[in-house]
Amino acid sequence: MPADINGRGADNASERPQLKISIIGVGLIGGSIGMAARKRMDATVCGYDPDPAVLSAALELGAIDAAVHDIAHAVADAQVVFVAAPVGALPGAVEQALRCAPSDCVVSDVGSTKRVLAAAGADERFVGGHPLAGAETSGVRHAREDLFDGASWYLTPAKGTSGVLYERLHRVLVGLGAQPAAIDVQVHDRLMACVSHLPHVLANVLVAEAANAVEADGRLPSTGPSFRDATRVAGANSGIWTDIYLSNRDALIDSIEETITKLGEVREALTAGDAQAITDWNEHARAARERLLGEGLVGAAVHELRVAVPNRPGVIAEIALELGRAGVNIVDMALSPSADNSQGVVALWLRGDEQSARARELIAGLDFPVAQA
Amino acid sequence: MPADINGRGADNASERPQLKISIIGVGLIGGSIGMAARKRMDATVCGYDPDPAVLSAALELGAIDAAVHDIAHAVADAQVVFVAAPVGALPGAVEQALRCAPSDCVVSDVGSTKRVLAAAGADERFVGGHPLAGAETSGVRHAREDLFDGASWYLTPAKGTSGVLYERLHRVLVGLGAQPAAIDVQVHDRLMACVSHLPHVLANVLVAEAANAVEADGRLPSTGPSFRDATRVAGANSGIWTDIYLSNRDALIDSIEETITKLGEVREALTAGDAQAITDWNEHARAARERLLGEGLVGAAVHELRVAVPNRPGVIAEIALELGRAGVNIVDMALSPSADNSQGVVALWLRGDEQSARARELIAGLDFPVAQA
Repeated sequence: MPADINGRGADNASERPQLKISIIGVGLIGGSIGMAARKRMDATVCGYDPDPAVLSAALELGAIDAAVHDIAHAVADAQVVFVAAPVGALPGAVEQALRCAPSDCVVSDVGSTKRVLAAAGADERFVGGHPLAGAETSGVRHAREDLFDGASWYLTPAKGTSGVLYERLHRVLVGLGAQPAAIDVQVHDRLMACVSHLPHVLANVLVAEAANAVEADGRLPSTGPSFRDATRVAGANSGIWTDIYLSNRDALIDSIEETITKLGEVREALTAGDAQAITDWNEHARAARERLLGEGLVGAAVHELRVAVPNRPGVIAEIALELGRAGVNIVDMALSPSADNSQGVVALWLRGDEQSARARELIAGLDFPVAQA
Repeated sequence: MPADINGRGADNASERPQLKISIIGVGLIGGSIGMAARKRMDATVCGYDPDPAVLSAALELGAIDAAVHDIAHAVADAQVVFVAAPVGALPGAVEQALRCAPSDCVVSDVGSTKRVLAAAGADERFVGGHPLAGAETSGVRHAREDLFDGASWYLTPAKGTSGVLYERLHRVLVGLGAQPAAIDVQVHDRLMACVSHLPHVLANVLVAEAANAVEADGRLPSTGPSFRDATRVAGANSGIWTDIYLSNRDALIDSIEETITKLGEVREALTAGDAQAITDWNEHARAARERLLGEGLVGAAVHELRVAVPNRPGVIAEIALELGRAGVNIVDMALSPSADNSQGVVALWLRGDEQSARARELIAGLDFPVAQA
């Protein structure tokens, strides 16, 4: 098994050659990755898509430098592979990419549920990914270089993930304009069930409810903004969403069941005409929303931490996950091996005093020497 | 019982004196009505509020011309009374306003549920109202002249509502910048349960769900826009919303129960892994949303219809409700009695060919002679 920090001086050496990126599936997300990588990182981008029309459109729109006609050719020479297929087609495409990609190539995906790729996680080259971008439209015609600007991009490294490859992927995502954040694969899927898949389910239920109420001619009389907001995502593209719902169905079923329980409690309070219970319930929601969607950290100064790490697999993933778990966002990272290759230093950039202090505390808790640079 | 069209030449005679409006409760809505009425309609506005600080702020901010210290004095000389009290205080305030107001004064309210005022509906001077505006903030300090610009303002006339008074209220609302639309009181409350109260309940449930999922430190990792959209109204002002939930609780309980049933169906499809059922359900939601939130009619030409009506109570309410039920929006109306006062003509303005044609059809169906002017 290759060590976590290899002897190639990591990838951030100044003399590194042009980055070679491959994209499997060049729709909205894949096409936007290609555009940003070509224009912002001067990368060479090779693309494959099962639909020849999509593939030639991607070439014509400047999303890729070269179009090839199978996954094996696409990944043969790559340093970074993004599999941007629909959720249902992901496991097969990722498996094939890993089979054909070089041993020092990182393979990621952009699927919105991540446990379906658990098998791929056994390969040290694989890091699951999920950019929070681009839900409104689809297709390579909507691809844009700036699609990921400021967008969170979840990464789900496994215990055995190569540190060098994780760092490379992280750096590429920052280059695309995104903010990578490591998260445990189980937590990711449970979280997405609550904050994305359940809101879609409830939006669908709300429009169905309203359609029932408006029996006359199905045309809704005027409503306030709350209905539009609450149903904005109703009836999202079935070609994508049926797969998403099914791929995360156990977590989503749990969320639906908890929702049913909570709705039952509200119904009881209403039936009893219990004003105090209704007020308490509403105040809890207010507090939860304030806590959950608290102020961001935009504009705060960036601090650099330097962490001494042993050269063994999983170290970088361990640190990234620990920080991700605590909501600490790694703005950027760089890895430098020592001369004898037995250990290394990872530099982490964090935004704001609070996040930086928390990161130091967490890393110290993992027993790695850490200092502010 | 006064006839529906009285002999005073309706209110739209050019020689009419300055309009006298009274506002009971001068918070965000009441204060904004006052500002718009004073500045746009040159009305004299008299205000009352149980909170002396609010009352003097309203005076200072130019929302009212005069402040008085009880409802009886506020309404004594009024032509139009708006009761803008919180939902829980509405029935008492409306009852008192009707007791003290002159016999030719129209009394309305701005509560977001309407059946609680059913008793008031027995008085021909009362027309329930509900402007769809101003949910985000509260208090007279946020009052503004343009709060109702383009906003729908539901009216719930009863069978016995005076036509003259309904027309006067309609005209005042248009003067405030709003778009009045008549709706049956039962339909209104059922509709609001679906499109406003239920979305608030679901937003509260969603944040509670997410708070559960984010056990760590209660700080939500990054989410896409769907969560923010879906929870924008979570934890809305309890001082207002506890009353709203309770005042419409039977309709809201029905909506919650239907929601639970629908969620159960989704759960079954997910449990069975039934991709076709999930797709069908999602496509129904897409179709429902398109049908419900179809394109508006902004910019279409306004047509005038003239309807000959007998001078009897309820005629105007009947026409307004019939059109409201069909989603036909009356842009403006004017009522002219015949010389012998036995009948009259009501002019209705409607936007667009389709709405105009539909209105003619509906009015003809009520057996009133109707023609395009």
